[in-house]
Amino acid sequence: MNEFEIIERYLTLDSRKRKDVIKGVGDDCALLKVPRGQRLAVSMDTLIGDVHFMSDANATDIAHKAVAVNLSDLAAAGAEPAWITLALSLPEFNQQWLEDFSRGLKRITEYFGVQIVGGDTTRGPLSITIQAHGFVPENVFHKRSTANPGDLICVTGELGDAALGLLVAKNELQVTPSTASELLKKYQTPYPRIAAGIALRGRATAVIDISDGLLADVNHISQQSEVGALLRYERIPFSKAALEVKDDELRRRAALTGGDDYELVFTVNEDELDAAQNALETVGTQCIPIGRLTGKPGVRMLHHKQEIELEQLGYTHF
Amino acid sequence: MNEFEIIERYLTLDSRKRKDVIKGVGDDCALLKVPRGQRLAVSMDTLIGDVHFMSDANATDIAHKAVAVNLSDLAAAGAEPAWITLALSLPEFNQQWLEDFSRGLKRITEYFGVQIVGGDTTRGPLSITIQAHGFVPENVFHKRSTANPGDLICVTGELGDAALGLLVAKNELQVTPSTASELLKKYQTPYPRIAAGIALRGRATAVIDISDGLLADVNHISQQSEVGALLRYERIPFSKAALEVKDDELRRRAALTGGDDYELVFTVNEDELDAAQNALETVGTQCIPIGRLTGKPGVRMLHHKQEIELEQLGYTHF
Repeated sequence: MNEFEIIERYLTLDSRKRKDVIKGVGDDCALLKVPRGQRLAVSMDTLIGDVHFMSDANATDIAHKAVAVNLSDLAAAGAEPAWITLALSLPEFNQQWLEDFSRGLKRITEYFGVQIVGGDTTRGPLSITIQAHGFVPENVFHKRSTANPGDLICVTGELGDAALGLLVAKNELQVTPSTASELLKKYQTPYPRIAAGIALRGRATAVIDISDGLLADVNHISQQSEVGALLRYERIPFSKAALEVKDDELRRRAALTGGDDYELVFTVNEDELDAAQNALETVGTQCIPIGRLTGKPGVRMLHHKQEIELEQLGYTHF
Repeated sequence: MNEFEIIERYLTLDSRKRKDVIKGVGDDCALLKVPRGQRLAVSMDTLIGDVHFMSDANATDIAHKAVAVNLSDLAAAGAEPAWITLALSLPEFNQQWLEDFSRGLKRITEYFGVQIVGGDTTRGPLSITIQAHGFVPENVFHKRSTANPGDLICVTGELGDAALGLLVAKNELQVTPSTASELLKKYQTPYPRIAAGIALRGRATAVIDISDGLLADVNHISQQSEVGALLRYERIPFSKAALEVKDDELRRRAALTGGDDYELVFTVNEDELDAAQNALETVGTQCIPIGRLTGKPGVRMLHHKQEIELEQLGYTHF
């Protein structure tokens, strides 16, 4: 089976035909139509086997996650997803693996209404590079650099599950089967907060998706907006599954520096909090204040008024 | 040096600031503006070390070629290039390599007026995935599937130099130093036919760039337009450097199946030939008829009325 046949059979996914795709997979270029009055938002991420995911993981989950992490960047930009391009490098042709991968692609692209419009398939070390393309109306782009001291810092959901799920996957954390299953699901098949990102258009002063870990991602906002951040540990939301992990220190580390949660962390002027909460409620998402921006540079965290030494969590200010 | 610093220092290339880039490198997403009345053309290609290029090749040339092969797909679509995204996977941080790579990127992006707007940098086996983005006015997209029997098949320049250059690079071909230098240049730093692609808008009935080799690429047109092709070997243009290679069979193989030339091969109605030639002349490009489309499926080639057995050239009809 050559490159063209692999693309045709496993990556073209005929099911989805968007009207804004004039020419999709199969020619030198895809030809696409961006709606009038909309800007194009694009994000590109590479996932490498045994660096970003375990090469022997289920290929359906690998496909899901590769698309999800890119859509999550669109969520942070408040963009409505439209198209995906996919460069797949494979060490060998493996029909079962490609079928599983194709199933994962189909599921998540249909869920979010996006179409695969192009890409490349090559023989080489296992690696997936995806570019996601979405639309944002003129003048409502979320940036990381427009937050102000005094703004509240909020998250859209529970933190730490993905990092704990990774430990379960690596057999480094013992929990009950149902807890294991919950945590694994969050790690393997995250659903990015697309609807929440759109709901926050014009309301949030900065938005970022939690990929590197809460502290690192809040630090991105803090650096780019030239503000500081004071977080309150007791307000960090945990899932029931995470609370069943007995090691408090491990759970804390997972939530603060673990990453891979793909919730949004955003800042909002205190006067806008109710509006943001209402907007998020209409899309079934929580809005949980966990701290406040300050004028003093850097990220700090209190736990019942006691400062937590963040370096002990493996967090380095960079 | 972490990922963010590498991107900032070597891949952001401040020199180029297009007005249609609202937000470039540095946020979750780039935010871009497609001009009114234009469609977006995108193409993505992966180059893997020791598969698509020699890992120990000059990094300036690697960067050049990685961008060039993507822009060549835009040329075939008649698109005007605008933006690049770049996913770079590197086995280790190597400052000299990154400086050289950055220099190559800067040179070719400035030459074609494109801006790097985003991407990803990861640690892993050497590999480069680039997506090129360009504009095409509504209703003038080149497809491969609109050619008709009787149309002339033309190329924009000399063939075979790149494949011969690869042999020089691998020390498998002995030629004079000046010939070696000419051939290597064509292999290492091709300049895609962007202006020619734009000049052919509305004139060519099918256009493709020669990346896989003349026969394979003519076969793509032939299959997608459901026509046949009859080429005439004596009309294939060769450079002075290629003609200095004494082995006729080697030169023929390089021109017909070698690939990597990044000239355009296109089809044009006979009545439109003069107009196409004039349009190409204004952008300094040749328009060389090398054959004709027929109603009989498949690709055939004559040499002074004798049919050449294409299988002997390593060409397989697929």
